[in-house]
Amino acid sequence: MAKKIEYGRFLHGGDYNPEQWLNRPDILKKDIEYFKEAHINTVSVGIFSWAVLEPEEGKYNLDWLEQIIDNLYKERIYTILATPSGARPKWMADKYPEVLRMDPDRTRRFFGGRHNHCYTSPVYREKVHAIDKLLSQRLGSHPGVILWHISNEFGGECYCPLCQQKFREWLKEKYGTIEKLNSSWCTTFWSHTYNSFDQIEAPSPKGEDALHALNLDWKRFVTDRTLDFIKEEISAIREGGSELPVTANLMYDYNGLDYKKFRDVLDVVSWDNYPGWHKKEEYLTAIDAGMQHDLMRSIKKQPFLLMESCPSATNWKPINKLKKPGMMLAASLQAVAHGSDSVLYFQLHQSQGASEKFHGAVIDHYGGDDTRVFKEVTEVGEALVKLQEVCGSQMKAPAAVLYDRENNWAIQDVQGPRNENMFYTEAVQKQYRALREQGLNVDVISMEHDLSDYKIVAAPMAYMFLDGYEKQLRTFAENGGTLVLTYWSGLVDGTDKCLLGGTPYGLMEAVGLRTEEIDALYDWEENFGIPENGNHLGITGTYTCKNLCELVKVSDAEVLMRYGKDFYAGRPVLTHKAYGKGHVYYVCADMEQAFYEDFYGRTVKEAGVQAPLEFVPAGVSVTLRENEAYQYLFIQNFAREPKAVPVPAGYEVLYGTEKEVLAPLETRILKRSK
Amino acid sequence: MAKKIEYGRFLHGGDYNPEQWLNRPDILKKDIEYFKEAHINTVSVGIFSWAVLEPEEGKYNLDWLEQIIDNLYKERIYTILATPSGARPKWMADKYPEVLRMDPDRTRRFFGGRHNHCYTSPVYREKVHAIDKLLSQRLGSHPGVILWHISNEFGGECYCPLCQQKFREWLKEKYGTIEKLNSSWCTTFWSHTYNSFDQIEAPSPKGEDALHALNLDWKRFVTDRTLDFIKEEISAIREGGSELPVTANLMYDYNGLDYKKFRDVLDVVSWDNYPGWHKKEEYLTAIDAGMQHDLMRSIKKQPFLLMESCPSATNWKPINKLKKPGMMLAASLQAVAHGSDSVLYFQLHQSQGASEKFHGAVIDHYGGDDTRVFKEVTEVGEALVKLQEVCGSQMKAPAAVLYDRENNWAIQDVQGPRNENMFYTEAVQKQYRALREQGLNVDVISMEHDLSDYKIVAAPMAYMFLDGYEKQLRTFAENGGTLVLTYWSGLVDGTDKCLLGGTPYGLMEAVGLRTEEIDALYDWEENFGIPENGNHLGITGTYTCKNLCELVKVSDAEVLMRYGKDFYAGRPVLTHKAYGKGHVYYVCADMEQAFYEDFYGRTVKEAGVQAPLEFVPAGVSVTLRENEAYQYLFIQNFAREPKAVPVPAGYEVLYGTEKEVLAPLETRILKRSK
Amino acid sequence: MAKKIEYGRFLHGGDYNPEQWLNRPDILKKDIEYFKEAHINTVSVGIFSWAVLEPEEGKYNLDWLEQIIDNLYKERIYTILATPSGARPKWMADKYPEVLRMDPDRTRRFFGGRHNHCYTSPVYREKVHAIDKLLSQRLGSHPGVILWHISNEFGGECYCPLCQQKFREWLKEKYGTIEKLNSSWCTTFWSHTYNSFDQIEAPSPKGEDALHALNLDWKRFVTDRTLDFIKEEISAIREGGSELPVTANLMYDYNGLDYKKFRDVLDVVSWDNYPGWHKKEEYLTAIDAGMQHDLMRSIKKQPFLLMESCPSATNWKPINKLKKPGMMLAASLQAVAHGSDSVLYFQLHQSQGASEKFHGAVIDHYGGDDTRVFKEVTEVGEALVKLQEVCGSQMKAPAAVLYDRENNWAIQDVQGPRNENMFYTEAVQKQYRALREQGLNVDVISMEHDLSDYKIVAAPMAYMFLDGYEKQLRTFAENGGTLVLTYWSGLVDGTDKCLLGGTPYGLMEAVGLRTEEIDALYDWEENFGIPENGNHLGITGTYTCKNLCELVKVSDAEVLMRYGKDFYAGRPVLTHKAYGKGHVYYVCADMEQAFYEDFYGRTVKEAGVQAPLEFVPAGVSVTLRENEAYQYLFIQNFAREPKAVPVPAGYEVLYGTEKEVLAPLETRILKRSK
Repeated sequence: MAKKIEYGRFLHGGDYNPEQWLNRPDILKKDIEYFKEAHINTVSVGIFSWAVLEPEEGKYNLDWLEQIIDNLYKERIYTILATPSGARPKWMADKYPEVLRMDPDRTRRFFGGRHNHCYTSPVYREKVHAIDKLLSQRLGSHPGVILWHISNEFGGECYCPLCQQKFREWLKEKYGTIEKLNSSWCTTFWSHTYNSFDQIEAPSPKGEDALHALNLDWKRFVTDRTLDFIKEEISAIREGGSELPVTANLMYDYNGLDYKKFRDVLDVVSWDNYPGWHKKEEYLTAIDAGMQHDLMRSIKKQPFLLMESCPSATNWKPINKLKKPGMMLAASLQAVAHGSDSVLYFQLHQSQGASEKFHGAVIDHYGGDDTRVFKEVTEVGEALVKLQEVCGSQMKAPAAVLYDRENNWAIQDVQGPRNENMFYTEAVQKQYRALREQGLNVDVISMEHDLSDYKIVAAPMAYMFLDGYEKQLRTFAENGGTLVLTYWSGLVDGTDKCLLGGTPYGLMEAVGLRTEEIDALYDWEENFGIPENGNHLGITGTYTCKNLCELVKVSDAEVLMRYGKDFYAGRPVLTHKAYGKGHVYYVCADMEQAFYEDFYGRTVKEAGVQAPLEFVPAGVSVTLRENEAYQYLFIQNFAREPKAVPVPAGYEVLYGTEKEVLAPLETRILKRSK
Repeated sequence: MAKKIEYGRFLHGGDYNPEQWLNRPDILKKDIEYFKEAHINTVSVGIFSWAVLEPEEGKYNLDWLEQIIDNLYKERIYTILATPSGARPKWMADKYPEVLRMDPDRTRRFFGGRHNHCYTSPVYREKVHAIDKLLSQRLGSHPGVILWHISNEFGGECYCPLCQQKFREWLKEKYGTIEKLNSSWCTTFWSHTYNSFDQIEAPSPKGEDALHALNLDWKRFVTDRTLDFIKEEISAIREGGSELPVTANLMYDYNGLDYKKFRDVLDVVSWDNYPGWHKKEEYLTAIDAGMQHDLMRSIKKQPFLLMESCPSATNWKPINKLKKPGMMLAASLQAVAHGSDSVLYFQLHQSQGASEKFHGAVIDHYGGDDTRVFKEVTEVGEALVKLQEVCGSQMKAPAAVLYDRENNWAIQDVQGPRNENMFYTEAVQKQYRALREQGLNVDVISMEHDLSDYKIVAAPMAYMFLDGYEKQLRTFAENGGTLVLTYWSGLVDGTDKCLLGGTPYGLMEAVGLRTEEIDALYDWEENFGIPENGNHLGITGTYTCKNLCELVKVSDAEVLMRYGKDFYAGRPVLTHKAYGKGHVYYVCADMEQAFYEDFYGRTVKEAGVQAPLEFVPAGVSVTLRENEAYQYLFIQNFAREPKAVPVPAGYEVLYGTEKEVLAPLETRILKRSK
Repeated sequence: MAKKIEYGRFLHGGDYNPEQWLNRPDILKKDIEYFKEAHINTVSVGIFSWAVLEPEEGKYNLDWLEQIIDNLYKERIYTILATPSGARPKWMADKYPEVLRMDPDRTRRFFGGRHNHCYTSPVYREKVHAIDKLLSQRLGSHPGVILWHISNEFGGECYCPLCQQKFREWLKEKYGTIEKLNSSWCTTFWSHTYNSFDQIEAPSPKGEDALHALNLDWKRFVTDRTLDFIKEEISAIREGGSELPVTANLMYDYNGLDYKKFRDVLDVVSWDNYPGWHKKEEYLTAIDAGMQHDLMRSIKKQPFLLMESCPSATNWKPINKLKKPGMMLAASLQAVAHGSDSVLYFQLHQSQGASEKFHGAVIDHYGGDDTRVFKEVTEVGEALVKLQEVCGSQMKAPAAVLYDRENNWAIQDVQGPRNENMFYTEAVQKQYRALREQGLNVDVISMEHDLSDYKIVAAPMAYMFLDGYEKQLRTFAENGGTLVLTYWSGLVDGTDKCLLGGTPYGLMEAVGLRTEEIDALYDWEENFGIPENGNHLGITGTYTCKNLCELVKVSDAEVLMRYGKDFYAGRPVLTHKAYGKGHVYYVCADMEQAFYEDFYGRTVKEAGVQAPLEFVPAGVSVTLRENEAYQYLFIQNFAREPKAVPVPAGYEVLYGTEKEVLAPLETRILKRSK
């Protein structure tokens, strides 16, 4: 059972590497003064500290770390304590080369970088176990330590013989017999039949890389292997005696791991958020970041932690722009608005050398507190103090958008209509954005999530139906839900094997049609949808579509819109069927954003969903957090112009002004009793 | 001597993989019903079936295959039987790693994909021999089997020690002594002199990749090695007792092999045609596909087989568009128009899994015959029945365009004026298109073809003169032919060694000029050619040129056009010399398409060549097949607008309407007695 | 001490490979006739001749070479004799694989190409030593030999164990203790601490490639290793008894080596110049080539040799254009104008085969002297004869632009504001061009150059301050110099470790400001600078800036221009402080070219610098060479239009016309007594 996370105040602070300044006690002392000035109450230490903690094999030195934690705790600054497994010392790589990863071509990497160890290596696991346990024994009960931070940004994969052997075992566990695997993977194609599990190799561009089921199972295996490693780290902590909760910091739309599987392993989800503000209109970036916040929050459907964010410009994007005044505060409060109980930064004090020395930090190489960045960090700290009562409150969403990682993997690997890009993530984002613009909280879910609490579920491009997902969708609609399906749905089962007899598989009756063909458009082509006179939703606009246009044969659905050109002009592009107590919509083509905004404006009403604000101006973001007693309504203006958002009746202003107009990047937080 | 191919009817059908459905007899049964419905009379089986034919080393299972062939034959459906060597079973790769190819960096590939075996490996040859012989013994005399299909789409190369040793032997055979090789390859350059054949290594980006003669000989060796492998397969078939003819399916403009060398090995040429219809104007795609048909037909100057084509969208292009209604019929009849005696598809029944599961098929995952694709396939079947008498008829061409693979290799490898692109293939296509637009059959030939039957020969960018090709060209003109030469001709001999003393080598007197310099233009630059008043052809238009502009010094040729700008304004861009009984033209620059259309409109008349139609509207394609008794005139409108093409006197309509106007994609086939 | 170079006449000639024509004595004889016709007096032989000099291990054959040198000398043609180490024979690579380089992935390359030997390999050094010594013994005192040409275009690096071991020794020599190295490299970051020098590995994309100090030291080591190899070659020559001076041919803006370190090793600098004339306006190419000439000249602040240039089109650029008439003469005289005492070509006689057979040559495959190229080469030869007295004259520059290779390496490796491109070289070029357009000689210097002779020093983007370079800059201004600094200056020390306490480090007081933040702009963004009313320079124009905009906090500087938009509108973009007897300017953003032209038009006057011409028209290039008695003023019109440049009083015309107007590509050389 997950550990309870309840700090009673927002965590403010971030990654801190005092081991880089051990010979500068003056700087370490000054750091704490600055932390207090900026209302920083939490630091993450120990990330990448292994070489200082165990400078030679078996010779440990934790004294400096204890001292740091002591010093911080004296000033009421708490520590998130990291295990050091994100980077190993050179001596270990030299003595035990097996700790280094192998590339897909089966050659071993050299020492360097970080995050590139084999998760299977017994030696690596043994070394990690030992140091984690020791950290737990020495510091796991320190009153200043509040949370375990396992390693750092897990990712990547290893193709060494040890990992491949684990993969074979994993497959045997999954399929039981080689005949079952052959049949599921369709290995008869190109004479790829395996005679035994021993014959299976991991995918590689130097060998097999187009057997989709193999690719997919390998990706699943990598997630499971990573989780197995995380569990090993947690077990070491528990052996060391600490019962503190654990987290691991996840990454933006990370495609290498299926985070839904992390739900039961982490006590709290945390993630690292680095939006590219000011590259395009801030509102578009806010939609993008908001969806990621909601994706992370939906993993456990609990408040999460913003573990990293940049107090200034990053240094690893192609172009690293400064955040304009007010941007960091708005971005920080957006995290809180979407369910974060923290605002943490990478990094508190800039490193003097190596690859991240120019990454933004609360304290920079200049070293003073009279910088714009330091002042804006302080402003965030003050805001979090003011908002303290919101901490720990929950979010409920009437709508959900399906965005499943396994489905994404399968679509990206498809050799199908558009090998350049199927635009799956973009299709999800369009629906998410249109629902959010109705002013609704929106969950971003996987195929493992229960649907029964939602009024509206959008499942765009649900290409792969895992474990009979068609039944869940059908039941959701039967029970009164509004289900929005699209082109390229229900084509394959969980091993990427085509479902025979017509698609969307298992839903042809619920949707009232079956698909016939799908046309791929070049980037310079488009088609459009023309509304049918008297369609029951009352849609009157004509909208363009691009990329993919499915041709369907309707059995018993209402046709609301039809294609406007090409040889399939006049064929359906939007249909509806009243099914059970609910509604099933089918969108045949990759429609433009404006279509979805029109569409959801009407279907949300049809579904009887009530939003907190009656009218949401373009560019304004609205979310609702609530606890047993209160509702907290976050209103943020991400547009580049002022927007009028009158305070609705019954609310008082908890944060921000009472003026009708919100300036660009201004945040207002309202509160009312339930 | 080549086996006689005479089926008396067009083959209609294609690749079929029943081994994927052995556990679904219902589907196998239904397939045959559908085949009959669609007038399918031929299937290709056994491609990639090795793992089912020999599931364990030495344990063969051919019963299922015989059953399939029996069942088909009962319904008068004939079988093209493939050898399974296109993909080897996993057990073989595991037990004998030598069957896997080595990459240019001399590392061995892993098992995966297809077509990636070493053609030298004694083990692979032994295993292939054994199964081929067995197939021949068991099924090579089956009355339902009509043709052998050797492996599949031969291609690629192996850099293993065995192949490199064969390369050394090949070089020794070719050059005799190492001194001769050193001199031919100019190895004194950069101290590359070899002391013995043992010192020679295959080219590699990790070693030597800029010794052009080495690169060129390696490519020639790869063709010879592939042919040696094919001969080994044929010998196994013959040992097994079958005397049926053999083919191997070739590929679109495939650059890895010199198909002209396949002439004497295959009994019939077959190829796989996948044009990207609807990406640009269909007429342009038709010109492109038409040239490939003519290239394949010209290998043996005999009717060929269209071995693969897509009944719907492919799945391996970046964007895989649907074929619009009528496109597949037009494309199929285009193949017939250019000399094909078949229309065969990849694939008859869609695979349920793996990398080609979304490739278009006659029968798809839905599995019914009520699809657009199935109906259009049936339409093709009906057309072929109607055209039965055309099958086996020949084609004669008054004009030929030289497109030699070795010349292409040499030009692509040139470090010369334009390393970005010399536009050799495009230069060939321009001349081919302009000749075709005169309504003529055109052969696409290599330097091995005899020229004596042609009235017009275009030899664009004949950079490399193989085996004294200059003499053939000279003789052709002397004897009354119209010879069209261009810039970048006659620079090197067959080892890419420069010919001294002036170029075009051996033809300076015949052309009446020698070249001095060649200017390369950036993509954004162009020049133009201005006609000389009173030029004998009567050219009055001004035409642009790009990419390459040669500067020549005329000795005794007529200058018809001159450059319009740059420091060489006024120097010749088109010349003519009456030579022997013929004409020699020299085009100094990469002229635009319109120039060639104007030019050939005039030179075809001058050469006294008579086209079947007096006027060919833009976008219309005309070809002529004939047998001892009849001429068959194919007229296809590939334009996007209707075109008027009145039926000329003396012809009757064999296929299509008698209306004056041809709709877009419409085909009309006329017939007259000879 | 450097050997004296004094030939009393310009060297004219170039690379010559007679070993390719040993079986064609007729051609060798004809070559010499042609050389004399074209006033060619110098050839470089022996480059890449090893396989002919030592066809089998230990079996030498130098007779042919002596014969060639004799024959040339008889006709008063002198020889620059090359060591053959630029390419090794095949027998050596086969017998001693260690002579071949290893790639960064630690795999060894195969034989092929050139320039790819290990500089550490004892075998390679032994073999090179032996043949160099033998050449010296046999030919090093030949009266026809005037200069040693060491190897060819040194470049590249080797990652073999031998080289890595040398790297470790180099580091130990540099840092003394591992603790010092750890501290300098900031290895605490990501747990990269080394316990001993033995643990250090060369950087690799397969291991560590983001530890900037490691990358930087590796590059420095590569330069030192190369120089060590060159010294080895020189010592062999000396052992052989020859005391002739030595050179090695350097390359255009070559980033792989730090040429400033070559100063004390070479007796004379020579380089290979291949500008891409006619790609853009010739004037822009002339600026680019001119800066490289000045960079090469500044290494030793002595006349240099143009060792290679192309008499026609190259064959290794993407597009190899012909040089338009007059271009080669203008380019050749430009080299002389910037301090070259030679015009040498690659190549005198075109190779008949291999990868450079289409590279332009004085004598081509056609083989006659009636070509445009041959005539233009002859024209150059005649000009050099006419200019004989200029040979050996020096150049003095009142201004210098800092362009340091180590600084470039560091900036290119920065993970900072713009990882796409920081535009360092472009920033240097802008300043160089603006200074040159004032008609001044300009030195292009490194951080090792003394500054005391300059009036103006531009040090753009001096990111890395080597060895307390801030002191040199400060002293320069204190003593009366005009110092122009820019954004992104003084951030790190020589190990790329950030300097704490504010930047530009050590110069905040001299500049009168400190930097606060730096904004990166997307390629489509720009800002602009607005002049402050009454600024002391009188600037009135508004200029755009792009890419990088620094925000500074002024303490006591005059603000001359301010940003025009974004949140930092109104903050300084150009400042000035009178410091000591001099001036310090600070440019905060990447300003457009026009700004620098305006700016230097004013600051040159302020600094009291007098240019030889009062007015320099756009597109005209002016340089001044001088000897004890005379000044030689070179005026070249690189614009595409005629330009009026009256002959100033006191000068006579040494070369060219006296007309007021210079035609495009025309050169005039004036002379006056001192």
